[in-house]
Amino acid sequence: MADQQARTGEDSKPTETPAIRWEEPPEGPVLVLLDQTRLPAEEVELVCTDASALVEAIRSLAVRGAPVLGIAGAYGVALAAARGFDVDEAANALAGARPTAVNLGLGVRRARAAHRAEFARSGDEGRAAAAALAAARALHEEDRAASARMAAHGLALLGELLPGGGHRILTHCNTGALVSGGEGTAFAVALAAHRAGELRRLWVDETRPLLQGARLTAYEAARNGMAYTLLTDNAAGSLFASGEVDAVLIGADRIAADGSVANKVGSYPLAVLARYHHVPFIVVAPLTTVDPQTPDGASIEVEQRPGYEVTEITSPQAAVAGAGGGIPVAPLGTQAYNPAFDVTPPELVTAIVTEEGAVSPVTAEALAELCARSRQVTIS
Amino acid sequence: MADQQARTGEDSKPTETPAIRWEEPPEGPVLVLLDQTRLPAEEVELVCTDASALVEAIRSLAVRGAPVLGIAGAYGVALAAARGFDVDEAANALAGARPTAVNLGLGVRRARAAHRAEFARSGDEGRAAAAALAAARALHEEDRAASARMAAHGLALLGELLPGGGHRILTHCNTGALVSGGEGTAFAVALAAHRAGELRRLWVDETRPLLQGARLTAYEAARNGMAYTLLTDNAAGSLFASGEVDAVLIGADRIAADGSVANKVGSYPLAVLARYHHVPFIVVAPLTTVDPQTPDGASIEVEQRPGYEVTEITSPQAAVAGAGGGIPVAPLGTQAYNPAFDVTPPELVTAIVTEEGAVSPVTAEALAELCARSRQVTIS
Repeated sequence: MADQQARTGEDSKPTETPAIRWEEPPEGPVLVLLDQTRLPAEEVELVCTDASALVEAIRSLAVRGAPVLGIAGAYGVALAAARGFDVDEAANALAGARPTAVNLGLGVRRARAAHRAEFARSGDEGRAAAAALAAARALHEEDRAASARMAAHGLALLGELLPGGGHRILTHCNTGALVSGGEGTAFAVALAAHRAGELRRLWVDETRPLLQGARLTAYEAARNGMAYTLLTDNAAGSLFASGEVDAVLIGADRIAADGSVANKVGSYPLAVLARYHHVPFIVVAPLTTVDPQTPDGASIEVEQRPGYEVTEITSPQAAVAGAGGGIPVAPLGTQAYNPAFDVTPPELVTAIVTEEGAVSPVTAEALAELCARSRQVTIS
Repeated sequence: MADQQARTGEDSKPTETPAIRWEEPPEGPVLVLLDQTRLPAEEVELVCTDASALVEAIRSLAVRGAPVLGIAGAYGVALAAARGFDVDEAANALAGARPTAVNLGLGVRRARAAHRAEFARSGDEGRAAAAALAAARALHEEDRAASARMAAHGLALLGELLPGGGHRILTHCNTGALVSGGEGTAFAVALAAHRAGELRRLWVDETRPLLQGARLTAYEAARNGMAYTLLTDNAAGSLFASGEVDAVLIGADRIAADGSVANKVGSYPLAVLARYHHVPFIVVAPLTTVDPQTPDGASIEVEQRPGYEVTEITSPQAAVAGAGGGIPVAPLGTQAYNPAFDVTPPELVTAIVTEEGAVSPVTAEALAELCARSRQVTIS
């Protein structure tokens, strides 16, 4: 990887753009990524000076998460243009780095379209490169702004639901700055509560099998100086039973038209526990997550992931042994049930918080109305 | 460890007494243990020829689990006597190997008392040693018989609750032959269903943080040729939602007088999910687990275990690095909430199955009656 340089975290600006940032040192523009595969053991930044290096970073999951991949793709096109590489070739390579990541293709196309339009208009390579960078920055900024608005709406909702303050919030998986151009979705709300002096504790589910809670959310909570405690997913039950959870905040992978929420496996049991204990269960997600083509929860196809994620433990620090490259913790040949996410029906969701406001109670009509309002805002 | 010899599993008799067995080869009597610290990667047996070797095996957790520790303690006394060692010295060393393991002390005292009584009667060392061995074998046999009766009662209950057969049973933690003189508690019921051709699938919760489900229950299920599937604890929610769980079977660490059940953390969330989905939630435990001195769930003190069990992953196959000897998976300094067990209130428990029969619905009166009947049986 001649074009990636590892850099320790000391000289980075972590609180602003931990996952990704564009820099223009005297040697020429670079895209700087926080290597998520090394977290939380080490904070290492990857400095990409061309699109190939970025493709490799995307493939190795050094950068991951839907919104941030879109931003990375757009910056990757801008980087190729600024460095004088073939922009179409770079765009194709970037868009194909992870074929199922929809946002990646969208981000790449947006920067490429801006580049093409400006070059058609002015015939100037430099101006076209600047246009691609402007498109990437706009996407980044939109994502950041959406995060900030979700955080504000979410904080206001918490204030309504839990007027006393001193919130003890349980969250699942990683929904912070590492997967977003801004501060994320559910995590951004918890962070806003922290800044407002209203977060008493963030309970962080470790989120088996890939431990995104332990590895990434705990890392982000520590970085932001939040009071947090890690727990195994199954220990949440005791917390609810002893009255130590005031609200659950999670993100969403996809929201069906009826308000059914597909999110990281383990979300649905939290919803059932929250209902049993009369605790609000709040989903925070941008409106792009709402898919009007999916009518209900039963229509959501649940991705089944490889069993070795459960039968083996992977760690960047440990030597590897098993078929999936990890350390086996179950007998060889053990079959595992490993759905990537589960589906929570709308009747168990207290509210869905978006950048355009919250929907509560969650109904198909209320969601459709919010989506329509969002389109109006975009058109006007 | 001069007196322990490692032996591969090929020549063992696994289905009969996997955790512990007494053997009398020409070289003299030995106690053979399945080394649980090496499971499931390797099946290694430890052959103990004296009490010191057994003390070391108990301390290193090569043998663990309340009932089986009692049996091991009794056999240890018998071994010392048969080999001509000082019986009192051996008994003291064994009883002190794990001071908090109540059953260990009980088993040691029972074999020692038998030894002492026979020596007082006959003055014959050989007869006294035989009496100690008989006491150990009796304890072993009682435990095996209790397992068998729990299995029969549990199977009958399953037949009543789920008349169609083809049970899909979800279980949590390890409750099989590895922690019992027989085939265990909840696992023994699932095994009985398997033998009766009535088990369609055993869903095995991995049971974080120590992964007893993945490491031990999956191992026992594989050994017995059961159709089993491993899952992360938080994936149980999807299974319930898609109607793939017919009953939950778990063991118990302690049962309060009102029927509140303390068991491995993660049991309570399963009870809440089971109730929400109208699935029977069945606890299988010997009557010795019922503690009349503990009036209710609130009186059960929940042991908080070290945070490193959550913040680090341990594996016998991997090099270790963290403060707890494991591989860190969370930022250094992360605080963890790590209760050893949780408490399920009686209203969420469909039935408690004991060696004397099942209690359903679970009430203080019904439990007290069963305990009284058990004492009558013992006295008569």
